[in-house]
Amino acid sequence: MDRLHTRRRRPALDPGHRRHHVVVVGAGFGGLAAARALDDVPVDVTVVDAHNHHTFQPLLYQVATAGLDAGDVTYAARGIFHRQANVSVRMARVVGGDLDGRTLALADGSELSYDHLVLAAGAVTNTYGIPGVAEHAFGLKSLRDALAVRAQVLSCFEEADARPELIDDGLLNVVIAGGGPTGVELAGGMVELIEHVLRHDFPRLDLRRARVVLVEMGDTLLPPFHPKLGAKAKATLERRGVEVLLGTTVDQVHRTSVVVSGPLLGEGAVIPAHTMVWAAGIRASPLADALDLANGPAGRIPVGDDLSLPGHPEVFVIGDLAAATDHSGTPLPQVAPVAIQGGTHVAAMIHRRLDGEATSAFHYTDKGSMATVGRASAVAQLPGGLRLSGLIGWLAWLALHLVQLVGFRNRANVLVNWAWNYVTYDRASRIIPEAEVGPEQVTPAFRSDSGGIHPPEK
Amino acid sequence: MDRLHTRRRRPALDPGHRRHHVVVVGAGFGGLAAARALDDVPVDVTVVDAHNHHTFQPLLYQVATAGLDAGDVTYAARGIFHRQANVSVRMARVVGGDLDGRTLALADGSELSYDHLVLAAGAVTNTYGIPGVAEHAFGLKSLRDALAVRAQVLSCFEEADARPELIDDGLLNVVIAGGGPTGVELAGGMVELIEHVLRHDFPRLDLRRARVVLVEMGDTLLPPFHPKLGAKAKATLERRGVEVLLGTTVDQVHRTSVVVSGPLLGEGAVIPAHTMVWAAGIRASPLADALDLANGPAGRIPVGDDLSLPGHPEVFVIGDLAAATDHSGTPLPQVAPVAIQGGTHVAAMIHRRLDGEATSAFHYTDKGSMATVGRASAVAQLPGGLRLSGLIGWLAWLALHLVQLVGFRNRANVLVNWAWNYVTYDRASRIIPEAEVGPEQVTPAFRSDSGGIHPPEK
Repeated sequence: MDRLHTRRRRPALDPGHRRHHVVVVGAGFGGLAAARALDDVPVDVTVVDAHNHHTFQPLLYQVATAGLDAGDVTYAARGIFHRQANVSVRMARVVGGDLDGRTLALADGSELSYDHLVLAAGAVTNTYGIPGVAEHAFGLKSLRDALAVRAQVLSCFEEADARPELIDDGLLNVVIAGGGPTGVELAGGMVELIEHVLRHDFPRLDLRRARVVLVEMGDTLLPPFHPKLGAKAKATLERRGVEVLLGTTVDQVHRTSVVVSGPLLGEGAVIPAHTMVWAAGIRASPLADALDLANGPAGRIPVGDDLSLPGHPEVFVIGDLAAATDHSGTPLPQVAPVAIQGGTHVAAMIHRRLDGEATSAFHYTDKGSMATVGRASAVAQLPGGLRLSGLIGWLAWLALHLVQLVGFRNRANVLVNWAWNYVTYDRASRIIPEAEVGPEQVTPAFRSDSGGIHPPEK
Repeated sequence: MDRLHTRRRRPALDPGHRRHHVVVVGAGFGGLAAARALDDVPVDVTVVDAHNHHTFQPLLYQVATAGLDAGDVTYAARGIFHRQANVSVRMARVVGGDLDGRTLALADGSELSYDHLVLAAGAVTNTYGIPGVAEHAFGLKSLRDALAVRAQVLSCFEEADARPELIDDGLLNVVIAGGGPTGVELAGGMVELIEHVLRHDFPRLDLRRARVVLVEMGDTLLPPFHPKLGAKAKATLERRGVEVLLGTTVDQVHRTSVVVSGPLLGEGAVIPAHTMVWAAGIRASPLADALDLANGPAGRIPVGDDLSLPGHPEVFVIGDLAAATDHSGTPLPQVAPVAIQGGTHVAAMIHRRLDGEATSAFHYTDKGSMATVGRASAVAQLPGGLRLSGLIGWLAWLALHLVQLVGFRNRANVLVNWAWNYVTYDRASRIIPEAEVGPEQVTPAFRSDSGGIHPPEK
């Protein structure tokens, strides 16, 4: 049975036997949830992704800080659907489409037709056009980003060991922009990596000279959380050695320094740093542009209350790519649970359509948010105003993330690596896989495999 | 204490306090063994390697066939010596040296002086100048090689899924040159990957059209083993679907085909194949050339019977880099045990020298060899003529390799991955980490991080 319906290869079967075809673009949380929820629906599903694997984005910061391996946070997309007979996977980049003709254009020149389309391509780093970010900063949205950050930090320490005179130039400093969960988790992981691991790896370096600076434009960390949790996170990070700069903007990024303005350092203060990670914002996947649908905030695609595209009821948009709102018109947050619940919702809507029923509005149920602040400390905000922090929060975070990881193998390995890291204060994965010598060879930041800030290649 | 003695940074201490300095070039089996055995010797040791990690080369074929992750077969060099106070690690490429002046030149322009030098830089792939090998074939000597092979094979299957008309062009075929342990293990792992994993990943592909061809110039597989074991390996591989071509030479390699000559296919037979792995030979690291010492067979460095360099008793050469012989003048094989025993030997010789004693000849003790032929089958040849094969051989192989892996963490993860692969017939690590779409982006074969076939960059 041909499930791809490309123009190159016409279905060999009688077209009358052709089943309703749902194309899901993106194998992230939303796309996977949609495809899985279509299990018992009489449709053929094609999941299209530019990579052959799902990436568990919440743990990318652990890859960046050498706690986990690439394989711990990725899972072969085809493996996920081995037992779901109505799903095919296609590794391809979608570069455009004709919504009226119900076809998508793929980077290899072929086309993919659909009856229903679920756009779940997620988001990429948003540089907001700040000078130097695209050229010199690293993102943290893809596996490649995370491996590049790791290689950069480890290479800088290697270089400092050989040329300590460059430490004053910021060789050991890491500036992280963005005080949301990604920035907070990365900052916490980075000081730990330095304090507990690199301290032993580089006994001749004076690591008091290695600075980890977290820059946040707003007045509190973790803005979606209750301010008390943001304050707790700040106190914990500072106690562990992170410099937290609130109310501070990044004006410019150079190869070896970052220019910031804020109450603590003043206007145009220069922080020497050879590593800058930009976790200060995201915008919709370039796919929204390619389909000429990027009309919402930060390039997101405006949708109706059932998550369908206005004028195209056969197209649904979910997760970070959709500019969805709740009853009161407040935009839904760009987090995994919104994508997952959205995926399940649109699968149900497609089922309803096939049964001739009307679609209904999507209602997001907030089950809470959590963020680690480093070893044995996390903050969690649960429904009903319940807040956890410290060790209890961390154990909850640990359990949740282990359960969410795709596949037993990943869970078992992640558990081994976490236990190893925790008990020994060692980091399992501090290898520089690509670089030969020194940081010159590290992949530039936004030549990211998640699409980065560049439009998709034609 | 400054242990590096670079010209850039003079030791701050009174030179009278400077300890005897041993530089070990290479963090492979030999280099690690030498540095470890110098633990109780009153010297400072600097281990120099172009990578920041040791690579467990015997399991690279598992990385290439998606059974293991990069982190499973690598270990941070600095971590290995955390508890050995007299060892420093330096990530740098040695590009030359002045043996009379007892200094090495590093790629970053600095110099490293030594009192004793242990050259343990290993070997790289030898293309023997066969046309097209350097341009189109993949090696299997470094982590990067292994990841490139994996990405290439998986990308080819992805492409075939989208464009099955290319299967006749050899898109799914893998030709492996070299019937030694590396080629045999890779061929066995490759048919398993295809038969047990990719068969489920790509249900629409007719995998009977995917050929794995093992080409060996000699008349038997595994030439160092007893011919009966070579015949057993051949029978097992063939039963599992590998085409084994003995007495066959590779004449030429093109991007999508390999030209071979031999009794089965005749002269100049063309095998369509988009993937060729060259495991047919090694030559000494380019370091031997850079030091103007590559006077032995395949660029190896001739040594005295104590493994020291003639005319330079303070320089020792071990492992694959040394053209060492046994009592009868037979060259020692280029295998891990020779490197490990050589490392221990030269550490003892350096100790003797410091005590004013004479050095003694190196005697290699052959403890046997083993090679897997795939799932639950291996051949092993032990001293005293004892030979194991099949399941018993495989269990012995498994146990030995688990024990040899550096570090508990790696052993635990490898065990999880092996158990997963074994029980589920799944492969843990079949992700394509770098490539976006299609095989074009895969790293060319011999731009290898092990030095490849190119001279080291100045």
